[in-house]
Amino acid sequence: MAGTETTSRKDIFNVDKSDFSNWYSEIMKTADLVDLRYNVKGFVIYRPWLMRMAKELYSIWESELEKAGHSPTLFPVVIPEENFEKEKNHVQGFSPQVFWVTEAGEGKLESRLALRPTSEAAFYHMYSLWIRSHSDLPLKLYQSCAVYRYETKATKPLIRGREFLWIEAHDVFADDAGALAQIREDMATTKAVLHDKLGIPFIFFRRPAFDKFAGAVDTYAADALMPDKRAVQLPSTHFLGQGFAQAFGLLFEDQNGSKRVPYQTCHGPPISRTLAVLAAIHGDRKGLVLPFAIAPIQVIIVPIVYKGEQHTVMERCEQLASKLRRSGLRVEIDDSEKKPGMKFYYWEMKGVPIRAEIGPRDIESGTVTLVRRDTGHRDKVEFARAAGAIKRIGGEILANLRRNASKDLESHISDANSMGELIDVLASKGGFVNVPFCSRDMDGEACADKIAEATEGEVRGTVFDREDAPAGKVCIACGRPARCMVVVAKAY
Amino acid sequence: MAGTETTSRKDIFNVDKSDFSNWYSEIMKTADLVDLRYNVKGFVIYRPWLMRMAKELYSIWESELEKAGHSPTLFPVVIPEENFEKEKNHVQGFSPQVFWVTEAGEGKLESRLALRPTSEAAFYHMYSLWIRSHSDLPLKLYQSCAVYRYETKATKPLIRGREFLWIEAHDVFADDAGALAQIREDMATTKAVLHDKLGIPFIFFRRPAFDKFAGAVDTYAADALMPDKRAVQLPSTHFLGQGFAQAFGLLFEDQNGSKRVPYQTCHGPPISRTLAVLAAIHGDRKGLVLPFAIAPIQVIIVPIVYKGEQHTVMERCEQLASKLRRSGLRVEIDDSEKKPGMKFYYWEMKGVPIRAEIGPRDIESGTVTLVRRDTGHRDKVEFARAAGAIKRIGGEILANLRRNASKDLESHISDANSMGELIDVLASKGGFVNVPFCSRDMDGEACADKIAEATEGEVRGTVFDREDAPAGKVCIACGRPARCMVVVAKAY
Repeated sequence: MAGTETTSRKDIFNVDKSDFSNWYSEIMKTADLVDLRYNVKGFVIYRPWLMRMAKELYSIWESELEKAGHSPTLFPVVIPEENFEKEKNHVQGFSPQVFWVTEAGEGKLESRLALRPTSEAAFYHMYSLWIRSHSDLPLKLYQSCAVYRYETKATKPLIRGREFLWIEAHDVFADDAGALAQIREDMATTKAVLHDKLGIPFIFFRRPAFDKFAGAVDTYAADALMPDKRAVQLPSTHFLGQGFAQAFGLLFEDQNGSKRVPYQTCHGPPISRTLAVLAAIHGDRKGLVLPFAIAPIQVIIVPIVYKGEQHTVMERCEQLASKLRRSGLRVEIDDSEKKPGMKFYYWEMKGVPIRAEIGPRDIESGTVTLVRRDTGHRDKVEFARAAGAIKRIGGEILANLRRNASKDLESHISDANSMGELIDVLASKGGFVNVPFCSRDMDGEACADKIAEATEGEVRGTVFDREDAPAGKVCIACGRPARCMVVVAKAY
Repeated sequence: MAGTETTSRKDIFNVDKSDFSNWYSEIMKTADLVDLRYNVKGFVIYRPWLMRMAKELYSIWESELEKAGHSPTLFPVVIPEENFEKEKNHVQGFSPQVFWVTEAGEGKLESRLALRPTSEAAFYHMYSLWIRSHSDLPLKLYQSCAVYRYETKATKPLIRGREFLWIEAHDVFADDAGALAQIREDMATTKAVLHDKLGIPFIFFRRPAFDKFAGAVDTYAADALMPDKRAVQLPSTHFLGQGFAQAFGLLFEDQNGSKRVPYQTCHGPPISRTLAVLAAIHGDRKGLVLPFAIAPIQVIIVPIVYKGEQHTVMERCEQLASKLRRSGLRVEIDDSEKKPGMKFYYWEMKGVPIRAEIGPRDIESGTVTLVRRDTGHRDKVEFARAAGAIKRIGGEILANLRRNASKDLESHISDANSMGELIDVLASKGGFVNVPFCSRDMDGEACADKIAEATEGEVRGTVFDREDAPAGKVCIACGRPARCMVVVAKAY
């Protein structure tokens, strides 16, 4: 596990985060997260450090979805074109983005198969066979998989690519109340993962009509704030109403024996993009800073060795490692030939939350020296109590990362009451800006367009459950009375 | 988790296993493992019970591979045609099986992209960039993914399909000794999973030349025995020599500063097929019988409720469930409205290894009644000691399943010294038959063909490390002196 290369300080990582775009592409490379040199555009390699993070994140998110009553399933990667065509808005929205399988072996297929860009058209084809009675509902299934979209916008590793990892949950309810409650549950699941485990604060939006998922009645989504003060969408939940159910022929018999059309939601926690946002938000000049929950290594043990003491020190390190592993921690010893300082820099760059140093003096005094990645704070703790101390510090690191990220988000929520103010705020500090807007459904695309043209920002939607405009406000685009407050931000 | 349907005994499962093909397709349906009604031929849906088993199996196998020094990675699902064409045997072997992506959005792609049928042509393209020096070796990476093969043979769910789940490990070594040692390590990993955790015995073969992986020097593979006494291939390891390394331009600088071509192996543990074989080998007339390691539910608690006692009994069940969960067991309570007998049959069919019954008498006596799925044996244990007893019984179930499967395998290993004997043994009892054979490399395809034509069996290879023919034996196909013993079996 431990690296063996010898490098000098400047070779490791020392990049100012104020040029975020540069910082991001440098950390992708230096921390060996992705390799961009694969010979298909928009497709990247997940290197081991990132893949271990992805596996932890999948496991956290799947466990939250299962707690909320979802079961795992797996659908084929290919979807027949005829399935796609059943829901007209859906096919219109997605066809520019679909990769098509058309040949197999030496011949042509009879009809084209889509590489799943999302799996409504696969799931609901089967749901029409599985759902018969009210006792089959709610039906709540998820799959963890990669999806494929022929993005024509510039790709950015893990944030926008042609292949990305996510989870998709597809839920069916007897009535709209069930479906609407699911939106709140998805919001709670999102909070349990992003906020509680990863320290990523977010704002939950109802998206404008023109920015809805193709085929949805309403789209809800969580936006986090990137270091360059642009919004980035994390999980979304789409309230599908009965549109897909009608298109795919979903019907159930209710308690009275009548056939009824169910209501649906779908929910898409992004794995690749969440990892990108996590790296971006918590990282610093020295590299990644990983919360405990997702760090492939939570504690790196570095022996501080002097001539003649090697054996005793290594023995003590092994002792500590097995002690910590028994208490469920992910621990490695860096026993490479590098000098301790080089090891420190390397594992700091990788984002390992806690470094444990053991030298002859620690052995004498029965202690371990613990160093926090986030603050650099050093602490001597009793060897016998190291596991407990490490878990406590792990919690403090998460709390600290979350506090800093929340401060950053909160200090970038502003108000503007005119186009001029909005332009100023977006240019001077960026972030999220509340503005009065004329249309509650935000189907007034004209006003949203005006905002987009004038400001580089875009209407991200209304804040969920807090939509009302104060009395007397007017839409910043058209001057008519405001019907709601919307949030504008520059966005990924 | 608990089902709510009311069914009668015969609706659940009661299928004689002697007609194995029927048993297999019935259990796939009744235990809700796969749904075959998806509208693309050869592609199936993994239902929750199977998907939970798949997740456990992935986790077991990945952990063994990591213990053996592998790290996780993830490569794109698409592979450019030009990568495939680098290794001539490889492209020849695989092109009849490749699905091709040729279109995206509204247009045609400039060149075709293969859906990975296996990922040598993706991995080794990048390995040529990553490997520079002897200190980069050994390089041992694996990915967990689905692969796609346009099978023209009849498909059988989970055993042969057009999309299946597996792991692929791709290892690179400085010399052939390292690569050859990897074959033994893969064999050990296979044993640690199949034999030690799942109770699936197997024979490890070196495959005949005509049955090698396209592009390999030698193919090694584990065969298990299905209930119809046919062989089924589980993991395989391919010794690739330097062929792929030369084709993809892999070079490293050795200690002396000379450029050298490394040696490679690849290894493919199948997830889908292992689940199929597991179901097939351990299942019985009542349904699945799952080993502890892979059971989505290890203990199903069934309250034995009489009027007026519901509350006390349910409380006790909850108490047991949390107690067992705290000790790391996967436990559910079936609190559905079904009668206890119906619950017993249902969970027996699903293969849950242990049923825990709690009724008023158990509460009085401070006990729990445990029933083993494999033997049906009932045991009363102290409530306070239930977790320990369950873990012990879990071990006994695995040992019993393994013992039965091993007995079955061993009693189906025979010898034959002539074509006539071979025909008789294959017809009367099936299984694996040792026969003397003329060619040590088994490149004498003519003799293998004669055997295949005369017997319905096929040459599976020589047993790894036990190849020698006793003195005086002659090839059963050509009568020349035997150079080795090969094993013939009917096979999937």
